[in-house]
Amino acid sequence: MPDQRTVAPRLDIGGIANPRSVAVFGASDNKEKFGGRVMHYLTRHGFAGKVLPINPNRAEVLGIKAFKAIADAPKPVDVAILAVPAAALLQSVQECAAAGVGCCVIMTTGFAEAGTDEGREAQRTLVETARNAGMRIVGPNCMGLISPLANMALTSSLVLEIDRIQTGHVGLVSQSGALMVSIFNRAHDAGIGFSLCVSLGNQSDLEICDFIDYLVEDKNTKAVCVYVEGFKDGARFLRSAAACRAAGKPLVIVKTGRTPAGERAAQSHTASLAGSYAALQAACRRHGAILTDDPDAMVRLADLLVRWPTMSGDGIGVLSPSGGGAGIGVDRVVESGMRLAQLSQATKDRLLEVLIPPQADNPIDLGGRRSGDVAGTAGKVMTPMAEDPDVAAVLVVLTTVPFYEQTTKELAMAALAAGKPVLFSVTPGSAADGPRRGLRAVNCPYFDSLDQALRVLRLMVEYRALNQADRTVPPRPADLPSAPAPAQSGRLTEPEAKRLLAAYGIPVTREAVATDADAAAAAANRIGFPVVLKTVARDLVHKSDVGAVKLNLGDEAAVRAAFAAASDAVRKAMPGAAIDGCVVQEMVRGGEAELIAGIRRDPLYGPVIMVGAGGILVELLTDIELALAPVSPEQALAMLQRLRLWKVMAGIRGGAALDTRAAADAISRLSFLAVDLGDRLVDLEVNPLMIRKAGDGVVAADARGQLA
Amino acid sequence: MPDQRTVAPRLDIGGIANPRSVAVFGASDNKEKFGGRVMHYLTRHGFAGKVLPINPNRAEVLGIKAFKAIADAPKPVDVAILAVPAAALLQSVQECAAAGVGCCVIMTTGFAEAGTDEGREAQRTLVETARNAGMRIVGPNCMGLISPLANMALTSSLVLEIDRIQTGHVGLVSQSGALMVSIFNRAHDAGIGFSLCVSLGNQSDLEICDFIDYLVEDKNTKAVCVYVEGFKDGARFLRSAAACRAAGKPLVIVKTGRTPAGERAAQSHTASLAGSYAALQAACRRHGAILTDDPDAMVRLADLLVRWPTMSGDGIGVLSPSGGGAGIGVDRVVESGMRLAQLSQATKDRLLEVLIPPQADNPIDLGGRRSGDVAGTAGKVMTPMAEDPDVAAVLVVLTTVPFYEQTTKELAMAALAAGKPVLFSVTPGSAADGPRRGLRAVNCPYFDSLDQALRVLRLMVEYRALNQADRTVPPRPADLPSAPAPAQSGRLTEPEAKRLLAAYGIPVTREAVATDADAAAAAANRIGFPVVLKTVARDLVHKSDVGAVKLNLGDEAAVRAAFAAASDAVRKAMPGAAIDGCVVQEMVRGGEAELIAGIRRDPLYGPVIMVGAGGILVELLTDIELALAPVSPEQALAMLQRLRLWKVMAGIRGGAALDTRAAADAISRLSFLAVDLGDRLVDLEVNPLMIRKAGDGVVAADARGQLA
Repeated sequence: MPDQRTVAPRLDIGGIANPRSVAVFGASDNKEKFGGRVMHYLTRHGFAGKVLPINPNRAEVLGIKAFKAIADAPKPVDVAILAVPAAALLQSVQECAAAGVGCCVIMTTGFAEAGTDEGREAQRTLVETARNAGMRIVGPNCMGLISPLANMALTSSLVLEIDRIQTGHVGLVSQSGALMVSIFNRAHDAGIGFSLCVSLGNQSDLEICDFIDYLVEDKNTKAVCVYVEGFKDGARFLRSAAACRAAGKPLVIVKTGRTPAGERAAQSHTASLAGSYAALQAACRRHGAILTDDPDAMVRLADLLVRWPTMSGDGIGVLSPSGGGAGIGVDRVVESGMRLAQLSQATKDRLLEVLIPPQADNPIDLGGRRSGDVAGTAGKVMTPMAEDPDVAAVLVVLTTVPFYEQTTKELAMAALAAGKPVLFSVTPGSAADGPRRGLRAVNCPYFDSLDQALRVLRLMVEYRALNQADRTVPPRPADLPSAPAPAQSGRLTEPEAKRLLAAYGIPVTREAVATDADAAAAAANRIGFPVVLKTVARDLVHKSDVGAVKLNLGDEAAVRAAFAAASDAVRKAMPGAAIDGCVVQEMVRGGEAELIAGIRRDPLYGPVIMVGAGGILVELLTDIELALAPVSPEQALAMLQRLRLWKVMAGIRGGAALDTRAAADAISRLSFLAVDLGDRLVDLEVNPLMIRKAGDGVVAADARGQLA
Repeated sequence: MPDQRTVAPRLDIGGIANPRSVAVFGASDNKEKFGGRVMHYLTRHGFAGKVLPINPNRAEVLGIKAFKAIADAPKPVDVAILAVPAAALLQSVQECAAAGVGCCVIMTTGFAEAGTDEGREAQRTLVETARNAGMRIVGPNCMGLISPLANMALTSSLVLEIDRIQTGHVGLVSQSGALMVSIFNRAHDAGIGFSLCVSLGNQSDLEICDFIDYLVEDKNTKAVCVYVEGFKDGARFLRSAAACRAAGKPLVIVKTGRTPAGERAAQSHTASLAGSYAALQAACRRHGAILTDDPDAMVRLADLLVRWPTMSGDGIGVLSPSGGGAGIGVDRVVESGMRLAQLSQATKDRLLEVLIPPQADNPIDLGGRRSGDVAGTAGKVMTPMAEDPDVAAVLVVLTTVPFYEQTTKELAMAALAAGKPVLFSVTPGSAADGPRRGLRAVNCPYFDSLDQALRVLRLMVEYRALNQADRTVPPRPADLPSAPAPAQSGRLTEPEAKRLLAAYGIPVTREAVATDADAAAAAANRIGFPVVLKTVARDLVHKSDVGAVKLNLGDEAAVRAAFAAASDAVRKAMPGAAIDGCVVQEMVRGGEAELIAGIRRDPLYGPVIMVGAGGILVELLTDIELALAPVSPEQALAMLQRLRLWKVMAGIRGGAALDTRAAADAISRLSFLAVDLGDRLVDLEVNPLMIRKAGDGVVAADARGQLA
């Protein structure tokens, strides 16, 4: 929906996040009511601005002068929060618009998310009313916002039943209100504060990217977390992600609707179109944003990236007070795809001063100390490990040792002094509350779940790799056609698709279309035997299945027979189908592996390029890499290197290396075709792209496509 | 180490788990000391038996009469617990042996786990001393045991700083002491009690299986959990697992040392040999035991299997008070490999009475209710979902809704009333302590981590599948040779390996060994062109790499030339190697896919059979299934069906189905060969086992092996 704003907004996002005044509709002393809780939390946490209770039946609420209607409240009213019933909402919003309110935060539900025409229409009316007045809307169907630096808890959620709102450097933008407050609460327990938390609900007016862009500019924010079910505008998201990147602020995202079933849940919730998750992954890789599947891990990661913006490598040191903890830690680190650090001899020598030989290596079991005094040993063990050049981060699996609160603090302080990321996983429950207090006292991160510690650690390693990858948008090669637009639209025949490929310098099979058996035989003679013959029919998708493909034809007679047989087979399988003759192709020789390479236009994120293991492996493996188009040959090569099939391409068990350079070049060219086709691209796929031995190139053996 | 016991044990395991009396070495009032804490926990939790403090310097400890030495204590002394320094330990143990003590529980460290000859020798002396007296040992290097029904906390761990030891039906046997107490504590927090917790440490005398066998007989135990770094005796473990199975008691295992690095950590801790994890997985599958990677999940699973021993299916219902929670829940359920339940129309109709249309399906977002009163709606939503025939278990992703303690209870009670497993994942932190209390009050399982809820749910689904699988040991087919023992030992040549296969009725290539070019040509004529020729040399492992394999030889001349060229190549690559001529083989035709099939003898679990995707896919995929040998053809077929390659074998995209029956038959026969070779088997591998179209059989194209 294009922005139909006719009047300039009265307030920018900063004014909404830090309002001078807040009007509370349905304000009440009663905490059983939405408006009651909002009033309580605003006052309890010491909101610095003006609180304006709106209630026709009350002179004051919680000792604060109340107003019968918004029109009576003293101006300016920057923000109004409304949880009134859906039926009464429009009138309240109209009154706000008339009273010059800057932004309505609407918690009421029953709009677009209900999935009814009525709900969508009501939402449209709300937005129109607001826009015509220059008023903004957060919601509906949201849980408000929390602005810790302004001591403002503009929400009815019970998670505000805390003594103090902690401030911090992580900004949280959540589509779901329930998750915003759940995340806020977990973070609060972990001692993590925010610069801003906001929930957007239906994103009817203000949307996720409005707040990302605000946080990019906000000097208190050093990392941005986003929980999203669907972006309203993919291109805008790409710009926002790039802005985070440029500002050096890590962007961490959880997206629901990754699976088809999750997509339904997300859609019915917010009535927003979920883009394909794979395309989002590609978009995030391009812009250095990081995706995870757990909302709490998102915030924990952001917090760690604020503390330790860079990692010195990817080696993990593991330390535990017990052999069991060390064993579990190491198995899980390795199974999570991370690398155990290799300690230097110098480190081992230092460790040997306090540990017995089997433990003076990674992982370290503190139980293997020479002296009986664990509290005096812990720091002497942690310091050498954390200082080892190959240790980029330390994972401590804290099981139980007697009196370990002191030991824990000692371990934490030694690790923090080394300046590298350290994550404690505390395995007992309430019995370890003492050590947890100790860790909080020295401000050392800990996790009650090893899963979460591992997930966050792996994401830190991933983030480092992402930052080291080449994420530039490549320049356009000079030899590409400048006006490629093909005349066709709809489904392309194989020869049509290959002409497009060939125009972009992608090698295709030598081939010719023949409309009768004589022409086919002549074509075969020109191409050289043996040849392949395929019937050309626009509506024929699975050529092999109906007998329309004849391989390995060795002479003219075989070609003539095949022409007739293939044409007959298609006519029989698809009576009345338009047959455009047959294509006669060279039989590809020397193909050592098969790739699949495709482009499509994602409705949210634009042109994407995919490459993967082709042929039968498409069905066996999901060995696929996606990237936003275009990619340079070097970036294409990096995609190939991430495939499992890379082993084969690089030359397995003494086998020859394949022409990965040529493959990367073809993929790069294909990605520029995706860009040039623009909105006309639906999809175009080469399968197989045969890859020969190094120096012998690649060739597109089959192709299909569809244009709008 | 064989059991060198010369004297019958004074006490059985039941007597150790429920002793009449416990002597505490180093008993003290001082909780800073091991013996002080043990005394405190024994008395605090009301141990019903006699407590006998041993301390040369004290007349009484905590008001209980103390003894200068164990010899002075009144008999019988069933159990003594010792945490005395390593140097003094042997003398204390000797005194115990002399005083008629039934079992020493030794917490002292510095024995075999130190990895020194000295430590191993000291441990050997300990064990000998005990065995000669009929005394048992738990430990050394353990954390004792907890016997809740006897109110006995025989450990120094601070996790006993609780008001009451809960009793329950889960038995826990842990090699690691630290993990035992950590697991105990988490379970305590979750309201889960045990029938017994014991830590074995170095398993110097009593070992894990002694306690599994005890728990199998113990009427208070309904499920058994085992944390293990290494079993002492694999065959014994198989018997113990089978006994659990026969008793209908689920056996849940966490094994560390799964990765090579983890293996080092585990070995240096307990000085025990870690068996191959894949073989353990096969052993567990055979005996219906379940493996996981998280100790807490192990106990949570056991608790749920005690509550709900069976599941009606594998369909999962997901319900959340918010769309965000429903979306996250569904994505994670699907990504964890589980299946979302398909609600019946009748269920949807019932849901439509309280929910708006988009929510009246799985997953359910309670926010989509028709009335505003969530507490009145929750049960009316949960009941139809939990009663739906395709819902086998319900996952509730509890985000936040106002006043949700009541809602939570209502949801829990409705779900529990349906009699199906229900798992709550509570997403907020301390803000949800109220709902947590509500869940505990109605005894409904909940998880603070969605990861853990998903892991346990997935394990329940796995356990159900495991119980449905055919786990019988198949009878021996009548046509197998009765005395197969081959004359060779050491490395087998390809023809030798194939003769073994052929003797077991596994189809191999038609072939003949020739010692000169004339004989090779004659053999090729008998076999039929084209043929394959390979040099036979016992020490030649990678034949292709040195040019010892010549494919597709079309006539006599080609065979003669190949004979010379291949022999020359081997002589050049391995000067002085013994060459036993060449083998001339049929060139296999019609092979549509390649399998790898192998047998080996695992040092702990005996003969195992492996099957997987062969040829180049061995390197690309780890598409492998392992089972204990022997397997029936039906069991072999089930192994094939678990491979990704099954898609290809079953006939992909209209392709022909392959001869999976013949493949399964060959695998079954190979598994019996593994059994018959007994201790002589090192390994034997067919790669590739070519599989042709259905009806056309399989053929072993290459094979290698090694016998002891």
